[in-house]
Amino acid sequence: MTDTRSVGLVVPQRARFDQALNLRSGASLPGFELVFETYGELNADRSNAVLVCHALSGSHHVAGVHANGSPGWWDNLVGPGKPLDTNRFFVVGVNNLGGCYGSTGPMSINPATGKLYGADFPVVTVEDWVTTQARLADHLGIDCWAAVLGGSLGGMQALEWTLRYPDRIRHALVIASSPKLTAQNIAFNEVARQAILTDPDFHGGHYYEYGVVPARGLRLARMMGHITYLSDDQMAEKFGRQLRDGKLKFNYEVDFQIESYLRYQGDKFATYFDANTYLITTKALDYFDPAGAYGGDLLAALARAKADFFVASFTTDWRFAPERSRELVYALLHNGLDVSYAEIECSAGHDSFLLDDPQYHAVVGAYFDRIET
Amino acid sequence: MTDTRSVGLVVPQRARFDQALNLRSGASLPGFELVFETYGELNADRSNAVLVCHALSGSHHVAGVHANGSPGWWDNLVGPGKPLDTNRFFVVGVNNLGGCYGSTGPMSINPATGKLYGADFPVVTVEDWVTTQARLADHLGIDCWAAVLGGSLGGMQALEWTLRYPDRIRHALVIASSPKLTAQNIAFNEVARQAILTDPDFHGGHYYEYGVVPARGLRLARMMGHITYLSDDQMAEKFGRQLRDGKLKFNYEVDFQIESYLRYQGDKFATYFDANTYLITTKALDYFDPAGAYGGDLLAALARAKADFFVASFTTDWRFAPERSRELVYALLHNGLDVSYAEIECSAGHDSFLLDDPQYHAVVGAYFDRIET
Repeated sequence: MTDTRSVGLVVPQRARFDQALNLRSGASLPGFELVFETYGELNADRSNAVLVCHALSGSHHVAGVHANGSPGWWDNLVGPGKPLDTNRFFVVGVNNLGGCYGSTGPMSINPATGKLYGADFPVVTVEDWVTTQARLADHLGIDCWAAVLGGSLGGMQALEWTLRYPDRIRHALVIASSPKLTAQNIAFNEVARQAILTDPDFHGGHYYEYGVVPARGLRLARMMGHITYLSDDQMAEKFGRQLRDGKLKFNYEVDFQIESYLRYQGDKFATYFDANTYLITTKALDYFDPAGAYGGDLLAALARAKADFFVASFTTDWRFAPERSRELVYALLHNGLDVSYAEIECSAGHDSFLLDDPQYHAVVGAYFDRIET
Repeated sequence: MTDTRSVGLVVPQRARFDQALNLRSGASLPGFELVFETYGELNADRSNAVLVCHALSGSHHVAGVHANGSPGWWDNLVGPGKPLDTNRFFVVGVNNLGGCYGSTGPMSINPATGKLYGADFPVVTVEDWVTTQARLADHLGIDCWAAVLGGSLGGMQALEWTLRYPDRIRHALVIASSPKLTAQNIAFNEVARQAILTDPDFHGGHYYEYGVVPARGLRLARMMGHITYLSDDQMAEKFGRQLRDGKLKFNYEVDFQIESYLRYQGDKFATYFDANTYLITTKALDYFDPAGAYGGDLLAALARAKADFFVASFTTDWRFAPERSRELVYALLHNGLDVSYAEIECSAGHDSFLLDDPQYHAVVGAYFDRIET
């Protein structure tokens, strides 16, 4: 049976930008390419475009399926008749600069050396991503997004759009996100980075030249990450103390189902994700802090935003807890902005934002319904 | 100035047990040695002995100072006039079997091979530890402990004493502990183990023979561990987003103070702790589940306990949350036992049990005051 609510087969596109890009770090790139996908049709007014920003391990492949059968990471949310309805909206997904799914990044050729960038690819930030996304908007003829939407790190990009280009975004949807990371968030990122950086196969980030990848480090980073994406309660429900083979082994093979799950997730991730991209992306997370330039005053930092906001958090998300979203909502409201906030009961922790939860999808859909195109 | 509330200089002692030890795993040891310390004097009735059990990285060195100046890990709690008052009690600290502070463990000679045990040292459990501690009690002429006390994994040993030797313990003090680990707890332990097991310097646990230690793995395990020992709030208070050198570096050196703290803790730990002991100890944590043999029925599992209990938890401890202690208290009360429970407001997370918190020390001291000797 064909899924009539799917955008169906999609083919990634590519855009090249030849103007130099000055990055927040002070480094610059002579030019860059972005891989992206689009779903639905841009209307005559060009007023129905929605940008979907991805999180740590996401990509431009948001919805539909690739020829190899691979589904988009937010396919449950984006499609004809879905909460972000491609019958009404022209939706754009983009692989961020520094990514490992085809946009210019550590696995691209460094024109200065003729070799792969590897660890020489500069650290990029949420601000840099938004700059490159604006160039993509220019390329597509989109002056103003109807909405920019993202979860987790993607939500930070949606928020940054309202600050960097307040006249180019009408609605920002910031889901399971935060105006900045806590010390605990940074701590988890740092352990993940150290796992990669100290893997002997990392070779100072130039592992491509050695024909290896720092799989041990990536695997550990992902295993630890998964603990923080799920809630304690959901882990208890899903795995509890279930043994994989019915008895304790008194060695270091798999005893408990949760161990099996984490090893599987870690092993899989290490086969397809790039370690340099992982490093860059965790730094982008750590560095995002729009209030930083305002002495920590988030109200002042958000004063230039004009967009309407939809903010959502999940009760069991301890990585980006509801409290972080409430701080954001408070600062937006005190700037006189139009803010809708949903705190959704969902047991799945941070990963809830990726799930097909009825209450969650209902409020996102209702919000998009009221956006004029 | 001399600290008049310190037990002062202490010298570890050693006892050898030549009777074979059958372990829960089915393996056995032909004999073993335990390193221990004692503080205070055993009274004529031998009725004032208190055993202090250690947690993951602890040792027999509970109180006082060694000749090298090293203080006991619970020196703030144990000493003359302190909550566990060595003027009244004869206190025993012991390094657990499988440990790396002198008791028989992976760094001991395996009599079967004449080489160091390394990874051939069997996985030992909380139950096994209590068995060996009972032999130490025999050796010291202690028929019945006035109390057995421990925090975290140490609390599990105190609880196990009440089940394994109900007639040899009058009071159990179970602090910041749990009757079993959750899936999330096991998950963190598993990532730590994988960090060690996949370190190329681990050499299947026989790294001693190669003149190396799996320092990368141990360091990562400890860094991650530290995140779980502290509370989110305390990390925010203590470190927040403070930068170490006043500016972002846009590389993978230390940006934030929290990164510096974790690296320091990890580096230090890797210089003195044994990786095989770390592996064994995390398995002992994972395996402890007295209700397991009773189909998960903790009430039934605790039916044979006779001791009085003091249970304490800390409001910000998310590793062994107050809920876990409440489950234990509920099951003890429903077995008609005498239980005192304190849920202590302390911002320091799981590590609170090691701190000199006035409210906490007051309730522990009050409990010991009422123990007859």
